[in-house]
Amino acid sequence: MDVRTFACDMERLAPPDLAEDFDAGKIGLIVEGAPEFTTVCCALDPTPAVVNEAIRLNAGMLVVHHTPLWTPLTAVTGSTATLMRSILSARMNVWVMHTNFDYAEEGVNDALAELLSLTDTIPLSLGLVGTCMLAPSEISRRLGCPLRCWGDLSSVKRLAVVGGSGFDPGLIAEAKALGADAFLSAEMKHSVARSSPLPCIEATHYALEAPGMVRLAARRGWHYIDDKPLLSTVP
Amino acid sequence: MDVRTFACDMERLAPPDLAEDFDAGKIGLIVEGAPEFTTVCCALDPTPAVVNEAIRLNAGMLVVHHTPLWTPLTAVTGSTATLMRSILSARMNVWVMHTNFDYAEEGVNDALAELLSLTDTIPLSLGLVGTCMLAPSEISRRLGCPLRCWGDLSSVKRLAVVGGSGFDPGLIAEAKALGADAFLSAEMKHSVARSSPLPCIEATHYALEAPGMVRLAARRGWHYIDDKPLLSTVP
Amino acid sequence: MDVRTFACDMERLAPPDLAEDFDAGKIGLIVEGAPEFTTVCCALDPTPAVVNEAIRLNAGMLVVHHTPLWTPLTAVTGSTATLMRSILSARMNVWVMHTNFDYAEEGVNDALAELLSLTDTIPLSLGLVGTCMLAPSEISRRLGCPLRCWGDLSSVKRLAVVGGSGFDPGLIAEAKALGADAFLSAEMKHSVARSSPLPCIEATHYALEAPGMVRLAARRGWHYIDDKPLLSTVP
Amino acid sequence: MDVRTFACDMERLAPPDLAEDFDAGKIGLIVEGAPEFTTVCCALDPTPAVVNEAIRLNAGMLVVHHTPLWTPLTAVTGSTATLMRSILSARMNVWVMHTNFDYAEEGVNDALAELLSLTDTIPLSLGLVGTCMLAPSEISRRLGCPLRCWGDLSSVKRLAVVGGSGFDPGLIAEAKALGADAFLSAEMKHSVARSSPLPCIEATHYALEAPGMVRLAARRGWHYIDDKPLLSTVP
Amino acid sequence: MDVRTFACDMERLAPPDLAEDFDAGKIGLIVEGAPEFTTVCCALDPTPAVVNEAIRLNAGMLVVHHTPLWTPLTAVTGSTATLMRSILSARMNVWVMHTNFDYAEEGVNDALAELLSLTDTIPLSLGLVGTCMLAPSEISRRLGCPLRCWGDLSSVKRLAVVGGSGFDPGLIAEAKALGADAFLSAEMKHSVARSSPLPCIEATHYALEAPGMVRLAARRGWHYIDDKPLLSTVP
Amino acid sequence: MDVRTFACDMERLAPPDLAEDFDAGKIGLIVEGAPEFTTVCCALDPTPAVVNEAIRLNAGMLVVHHTPLWTPLTAVTGSTATLMRSILSARMNVWVMHTNFDYAEEGVNDALAELLSLTDTIPLSLGLVGTCMLAPSEISRRLGCPLRCWGDLSSVKRLAVVGGSGFDPGLIAEAKALGADAFLSAEMKHSVARSSPLPCIEATHYALEAPGMVRLAARRGWHYIDDKPLLSTVP
Repeated sequence: MDVRTFACDMERLAPPDLAEDFDAGKIGLIVEGAPEFTTVCCALDPTPAVVNEAIRLNAGMLVVHHTPLWTPLTAVTGSTATLMRSILSARMNVWVMHTNFDYAEEGVNDALAELLSLTDTIPLSLGLVGTCMLAPSEISRRLGCPLRCWGDLSSVKRLAVVGGSGFDPGLIAEAKALGADAFLSAEMKHSVARSSPLPCIEATHYALEAPGMVRLAARRGWHYIDDKPLLSTVP
Repeated sequence: MDVRTFACDMERLAPPDLAEDFDAGKIGLIVEGAPEFTTVCCALDPTPAVVNEAIRLNAGMLVVHHTPLWTPLTAVTGSTATLMRSILSARMNVWVMHTNFDYAEEGVNDALAELLSLTDTIPLSLGLVGTCMLAPSEISRRLGCPLRCWGDLSSVKRLAVVGGSGFDPGLIAEAKALGADAFLSAEMKHSVARSSPLPCIEATHYALEAPGMVRLAARRGWHYIDDKPLLSTVP
Repeated sequence: MDVRTFACDMERLAPPDLAEDFDAGKIGLIVEGAPEFTTVCCALDPTPAVVNEAIRLNAGMLVVHHTPLWTPLTAVTGSTATLMRSILSARMNVWVMHTNFDYAEEGVNDALAELLSLTDTIPLSLGLVGTCMLAPSEISRRLGCPLRCWGDLSSVKRLAVVGGSGFDPGLIAEAKALGADAFLSAEMKHSVARSSPLPCIEATHYALEAPGMVRLAARRGWHYIDDKPLLSTVP
Repeated sequence: MDVRTFACDMERLAPPDLAEDFDAGKIGLIVEGAPEFTTVCCALDPTPAVVNEAIRLNAGMLVVHHTPLWTPLTAVTGSTATLMRSILSARMNVWVMHTNFDYAEEGVNDALAELLSLTDTIPLSLGLVGTCMLAPSEISRRLGCPLRCWGDLSSVKRLAVVGGSGFDPGLIAEAKALGADAFLSAEMKHSVARSSPLPCIEATHYALEAPGMVRLAARRGWHYIDDKPLLSTVP
Repeated sequence: MDVRTFACDMERLAPPDLAEDFDAGKIGLIVEGAPEFTTVCCALDPTPAVVNEAIRLNAGMLVVHHTPLWTPLTAVTGSTATLMRSILSARMNVWVMHTNFDYAEEGVNDALAELLSLTDTIPLSLGLVGTCMLAPSEISRRLGCPLRCWGDLSSVKRLAVVGGSGFDPGLIAEAKALGADAFLSAEMKHSVARSSPLPCIEATHYALEAPGMVRLAARRGWHYIDDKPLLSTVP
Repeated sequence: MDVRTFACDMERLAPPDLAEDFDAGKIGLIVEGAPEFTTVCCALDPTPAVVNEAIRLNAGMLVVHHTPLWTPLTAVTGSTATLMRSILSARMNVWVMHTNFDYAEEGVNDALAELLSLTDTIPLSLGLVGTCMLAPSEISRRLGCPLRCWGDLSSVKRLAVVGGSGFDPGLIAEAKALGADAFLSAEMKHSVARSSPLPCIEATHYALEAPGMVRLAARRGWHYIDDKPLLSTVP
């Protein structure tokens, strides 16, 4: 497949116009490799382990959610030099779909809702609210990560889910107004927890966003490379 | 005691000059009540529960770490109106010591080091590094909160501790350069965890900062009002 | 009456969309008291005298032109603490209509035109121009304040009137282009007077804006609380 | 005299370093005429009347307090074209001393204190406080302008005086802290009058600043050209 | 002719709306002279030589491409004082048409295309591309200036031309995409030349923009005053 | 040699503190390759030709004046991807010394002065002024580029020289004040030429800055890779 055709396909799937302003210049073709390729790999983050595995698999294209070049660069040194040397030497392309894939139909949040078997879903400005029949332990099992539960979660029927770092006071208020009993996202802050009108379930950023990439890979016949952060709880 | 004398005492303890720029106008006497008082209460946050308990205890002064008026106000409505009505009607003063107390000798980070029995401590630009003989389960017990452990914590001798939201890449790099084997703070972000050169222990913001206020209250003979966030982990 | 119903009524009268950008967050319900009330008072400014009188009259709602919280607050101390304690303890609501009422039909400028018996009025971008048959001494009497007259006012037929601080060079030029012979407003600056193409009559801010609030109170059956600044001229 | 020598003399009198930042580029030699001249005129503002009279008197230099070019120009049209044509065609120089003369020893505020026979003066950050034995009517007579008196002026001993537009809340608070009973300046605003801790006497900008220029002209043997704004009070 | 009628005519020719934002306040009537005039002169720049010659010819209006007041003025001294004195004393008007004339039909770039006998032209976002049959030596002769040629110009058929300082990477890329073989403009920078995908011909700013003013003058029967910079090449 | 030792040496030669603010993050080690190397090459710009030649020569370090990463990058595509792939794959380091080398003793401007045999030199804020006995044709020959001469250069004794893009009005004025008769630099703009108080000699950016790099390479025993822009004049 050639890069241009692939790009058109990806932009239909996750239109660049859907992205937040802060993603300007940080989505789409972020590293340009060979113009033709046969193998596509997919991952959440382009970590060294992911990149090395993709190269081992002869991937000509690596599709990721988080860009390897978030902070604008005027020097290529240290771990960035190592990573860029691996990618460029292998002539592997890197394609990024970030907030445009969060907002896309069949994107990050839809995959999350499917994984948690949500029904009767209604959209939020980001994420969605649906009926959830799962106990927290089952949510933890399906997501593959431990949870931190803020507040009293004894009677949750309608659950708001937002992939990534979604504990925003405005978004929580919107979810409550639309009937949510609890709010699932990642990266809780003390001040937000203190004033939250809903109990909150905190998973990891990885656990909430990976399902979208896993499902995309499965549907396209790509190889998904898992690289979950090592995380445990005490006690 | 009169407010003016109390203010001088507090400013010796946690000099306003130590505060970060973003605390300008947000520390010191934040709500002015009666000019004379006898009872002082202390807490981490001026939540409704804390304020009501302080009033019940006839406190004329409430000393807190987090201001009740973070976002500059042009209207006093909703929960802010309720809170301000309680405080003002009771003529209770509210005194805030925030980043000036984080940086102060005998402040938030020193109390945390004591609670965790750190030895041979050396200072960071914020927080400190010390030898820690405690297992994570004991750290959790002393802090009174569950922990999330990022990475491999099997051989930690020197532990960096930073009260509050301290998982900053620059600070972690500094800790590593000074010999830390692990980094304890709160409010981890995915991108920071991904690139952290040290394994990290994530407690709660409350658990890390409350000890400084508890110790202050004990030393001064004030009443500390505990209001820990309700938090549990699954599984 | 409940606050929500009252708010709808007030927003019909002085739509928030009419307000200048600098009024963002500074109009509407500025202090929230009891959700139900029976007595409404009205004034130009929420001075301590006005607030105390409103409380004495058991007002549940005080409607004013100038907000008590112009500068965004991160601390409530001094005279602000005293004022807010009075208002909040009494559970009195405060509603502000500022530039939205200046621009509103039947608002500040229309009331001023009526008080001065202007005829054949045409609108300015703020304020209006009309035929005025009154001598300056009669204008002074009706406004209830002494006047300062800049330039030669011997042959004024068409008078521009702008409530508040309206001596803006662009507005004066617009008034002249629309046929005004003189310009009535408050808070003249030397540089504006120097280059003004029209003679100007300077009243007080209070005298020009109070009539709008007085008329509003009269029409609604509210009690208007007068608190005119003490002002005299020498000689 | 040549312009360069004159400039040195003026910069000793009113050092440019004393000026406020907003005067950058707006003081000193503002219009350059002939390099040599014999006659100097002086005025507060370079109005058309002042400029024409200075030209009639064959002035080669006109010293003023307010610049003719406050707003930066990218076009010379209308009244500015007329004024600049007069000045440039006559090869008259224009020298401006503004806030540097306000702050200078023997400058605007010192001249004002002398005119009002103030004794035991102490400096403010701008202006000064002194003992004043004059009744308001005598102050009005000496200044040559009507006064507006805000608040109760029955027992004033120590008077703060600030030439120009000096009714600043911070300056008034400073004056009160230094013992002032009243505050004399120009261009009062409603919000400042409302919250002023001192009664205020409002003269005109011209009346307060002209004495400094008049005295300067007298000491140097220059001709002062008076051009007082036409102002009267009603009633 | 009166200035108002002339202005309408000029604004039809080069509508102000076409100008770049940085020309705000810097085009149209920039110096106002006598309201009626008979003689019009035209030039590229209002240099002292141009202004003096226009005055010698009794011009009441001088039409130029570059404003004499680019940097906003708060003082009129040095060469600006001399120039403004000449213009204002002579009561000569100055009219500026800058980027609005670059973009106008029959403007700077159209005149340039005509001078170089370009055919089959297509527009760029600024300037145009056309078939050019002239050797560089003939281009130099027609423009009346020496050329610097960057890169290999041996086989140019389609030439992009942009009056003024037009060596912009985006514009060059656009020209190449539209089939240009070379790019003619002025004021080349090293970094642009280094990465240019087209060979470039560098003339002078004057040589490229003067033809538009010359042609305008010829069509209107005005006198064009030439004032070419003195330029030679070595070797 | 190891990179760290080399960096210390280079920072002594051209201290980073000398650089302009706009060079922040754009000087020093800009691409990190192998930590040890034996061969150093040097050039003005890291063009593709330069980079390929350096790799052919097995250079482990390439020292250049202009960074390959001027615009901060969030994507590595097109010619940047090609260049970075070459550099990174070869594990070649790239070291940049820009304005810090312009200002350094024995830097760009000193080398230029030596090449032109200037005597009795005095420093400018950037560049210098010296006595020049060379005719323009000899200057052209030594610099290896054609010159454009603006104005009358018939009697130049004292010549100001500024490497790079140095035709700044303030710098030209400074040179004139220090006795210069002419000013040599690159990248002249029309507006600067128009108002220049000195005749100007315009060389190329490359010709003026390369001598500093050539001399540095010669002194250190590095290989200088020449890549002069292709430039000719007509006629």
